[in-house]
Amino acid sequence: MALLNDHYLKLKAGYLFPEIARRVKVFCEGNPDAARRLIRCGIGDVTEPLPGAVLAALHAAVDDMGRRESFRGYGPEQGYDFLRGAIARNDYRDRGLDVADDEIFVSDGSKCDCGNILDVLGSQNRIAISDPVYPVYVDTNVMAGHTGPADDAGNYQGLVYLPGTAANGFMPEPPAEPVDVIYLCSPNNPTGATASRAQLEAWVKYAQAHRAILLFDAAYEAYIADPLVPRSIYEIRGARECAIEFRSFSKNGGFTGLRCAFTVVPKSLLASTSEGKFQPLHPLWHRRMSTKFNGVSYPVQRAAEALYSPEGRKQVRALIDHYMGNAKVLVAGAKAAGLTVHGGVNAPYIWVGTPRGVTSWQAFDRILNEANVVITPGSGFGSRGEGYFRISSFNSRDNAEEVARRLQALKW
Amino acid sequence: MALLNDHYLKLKAGYLFPEIARRVKVFCEGNPDAARRLIRCGIGDVTEPLPGAVLAALHAAVDDMGRRESFRGYGPEQGYDFLRGAIARNDYRDRGLDVADDEIFVSDGSKCDCGNILDVLGSQNRIAISDPVYPVYVDTNVMAGHTGPADDAGNYQGLVYLPGTAANGFMPEPPAEPVDVIYLCSPNNPTGATASRAQLEAWVKYAQAHRAILLFDAAYEAYIADPLVPRSIYEIRGARECAIEFRSFSKNGGFTGLRCAFTVVPKSLLASTSEGKFQPLHPLWHRRMSTKFNGVSYPVQRAAEALYSPEGRKQVRALIDHYMGNAKVLVAGAKAAGLTVHGGVNAPYIWVGTPRGVTSWQAFDRILNEANVVITPGSGFGSRGEGYFRISSFNSRDNAEEVARRLQALKW
Repeated sequence: MALLNDHYLKLKAGYLFPEIARRVKVFCEGNPDAARRLIRCGIGDVTEPLPGAVLAALHAAVDDMGRRESFRGYGPEQGYDFLRGAIARNDYRDRGLDVADDEIFVSDGSKCDCGNILDVLGSQNRIAISDPVYPVYVDTNVMAGHTGPADDAGNYQGLVYLPGTAANGFMPEPPAEPVDVIYLCSPNNPTGATASRAQLEAWVKYAQAHRAILLFDAAYEAYIADPLVPRSIYEIRGARECAIEFRSFSKNGGFTGLRCAFTVVPKSLLASTSEGKFQPLHPLWHRRMSTKFNGVSYPVQRAAEALYSPEGRKQVRALIDHYMGNAKVLVAGAKAAGLTVHGGVNAPYIWVGTPRGVTSWQAFDRILNEANVVITPGSGFGSRGEGYFRISSFNSRDNAEEVARRLQALKW
Repeated sequence: MALLNDHYLKLKAGYLFPEIARRVKVFCEGNPDAARRLIRCGIGDVTEPLPGAVLAALHAAVDDMGRRESFRGYGPEQGYDFLRGAIARNDYRDRGLDVADDEIFVSDGSKCDCGNILDVLGSQNRIAISDPVYPVYVDTNVMAGHTGPADDAGNYQGLVYLPGTAANGFMPEPPAEPVDVIYLCSPNNPTGATASRAQLEAWVKYAQAHRAILLFDAAYEAYIADPLVPRSIYEIRGARECAIEFRSFSKNGGFTGLRCAFTVVPKSLLASTSEGKFQPLHPLWHRRMSTKFNGVSYPVQRAAEALYSPEGRKQVRALIDHYMGNAKVLVAGAKAAGLTVHGGVNAPYIWVGTPRGVTSWQAFDRILNEANVVITPGSGFGSRGEGYFRISSFNSRDNAEEVARRLQALKW
């Protein structure tokens, strides 16, 4: 008798974005006129076309695949040397950070990597996550059997929730209790907060003391404008012994539809066997990727490489400037509407407090019905997200300006 | 203290293909002249360029990504409707098989799917695999903790090995004992055998009797020439209640470097909770893909769709005919060399018995050193693969003919 994985049954049925889609659909069907002026600032998906350097690289790589002598079949599961080298050099070594080419593992997405990393970790680790948080960290742990059932507030038994609040700048401090694996996301999704050097130093110190591992999600690194904010966990001394870093081309190059990301697993990072022997995780992740993955599409890897060319860099810069210009407009609009606003400075997300007494979903419904704008209710990211909503800056400038106007016209 | 996944430490260090690569490298460095005439018939990777219809679709999709109005960001995690529909219609419904569009899950590879499917299955299932077998089935179960350690022959405690021998046409019968999950691969990698309708009927009957699940890997379906050989497990009555099917565009469209495949999970397929309640697996797999995957690259999905166009079909046909023409040449060559030959008729793999007293690796070394041809030693696929080697037909015709000549010149 074949058994299914019972842990899946603990997952709450209404995942955030499907529920948003459902409410938007109902609204649009009932209000066809309003539907035509709907502006979506919900899901964090880019809106602008791929940079020219990427398009040229894609076309050239497709041509490679059409000639026998330049055709590429199976590539290395960990990524082509040309891309691993470009990443390690440009994102790390040129910035003075010690990362070797073969510590870079190219993948088809940070969402996949954040979930798959659990494959190489033991099942008895105590897991800590921020609250609010990117739901994938939570759900993949539930699916892997690392939690008990959820309580009424939606918090899963066995996970350690670290509150991200206005008081700590939405960047939790290390807990008093010992935990083994900690997810950190900076720039943060959903709050738009960034971790300071001092905050990251505290986390690395904690990890050293507890022999814990930091899973550092830096998918939004390109949006950091402040030169004092660390762009990589490896800027912190000691991080090579305790941190794995996730990066993505989704939000800098606009690759959400192309699919390319990478994970850095330093060879100096150790974890313990159940018998207390410390061993490097690098060969385990290498084996995991060799066995359960077959590499990223060759044209897509060429496209990612093109982001590091002089033209590619300029074009990425222009994309980031565009989205952060939107963020500025939206922050100003939300402030002018009398709302309390966080984020939107080193991140494309704006984290807005709802007016007193208004829940996240109530704010969602009001903004949908009266302003015809889709935002994301903060409570969808965890119980500490209640009382907030997230506005995404991924849009045209015209739309961002229109959303700023409509927010100001709303009477709460 | 962060724990690693101990089960990885049970994996045998020398995975087959890296070991082959190592021996070939040593040989080439020591024999530069022979290295220049080396012909690779080892790994099952296509050699011919992508079909014209695929190239055109890729270029057009890249152009889509360069214009704001046709740009595509995040797609549906399960695949675009245009591709799910094309697959369900062409591969199933047009052949009289009842498969709905939303039972198709588009992925970046069958290797990934075969490994990831374990995510939604319980940890207490008894797992059966053929021997010899595609190593990924075994290794992913080891990694998931479904086995004990390996014995000296390389067999893992807790797995049920089903011998594939010349006597049963390399297609094992259902075991006497009850098992819960069974991997079947037809056309078979590595043996090139195919399961007959009667054999598959026996398996479906077994699965019904034991409420077991069949994981049916049909990645090489396109190579079936015999109209009596089933191309899909769903040709067998009752399979919609007990079988998951894996298919790939790697070996028909030549997508090993582009990455696209799919899995069929019928909504009528149930598995048991630990409390004995039967529930459909479909929503679990849907949730798994939504949470740990972000869909296949948009241009690649357009490329896969193009394989179903009239030109695409013709071009795929020509590719298959080319590789199967090679198979014919290689089968004839190996037979003329006095070797016992299996497969190579409905599959691109030829499974050759070594001469008496010669082990698989001895044959590998002889053929490398004396014929300067790389094959795959059968023992790398399991203990029952000892005494065989696999020749892949993925090559140019010239190379296939040359390999056939060199095999005949070998004196054993």
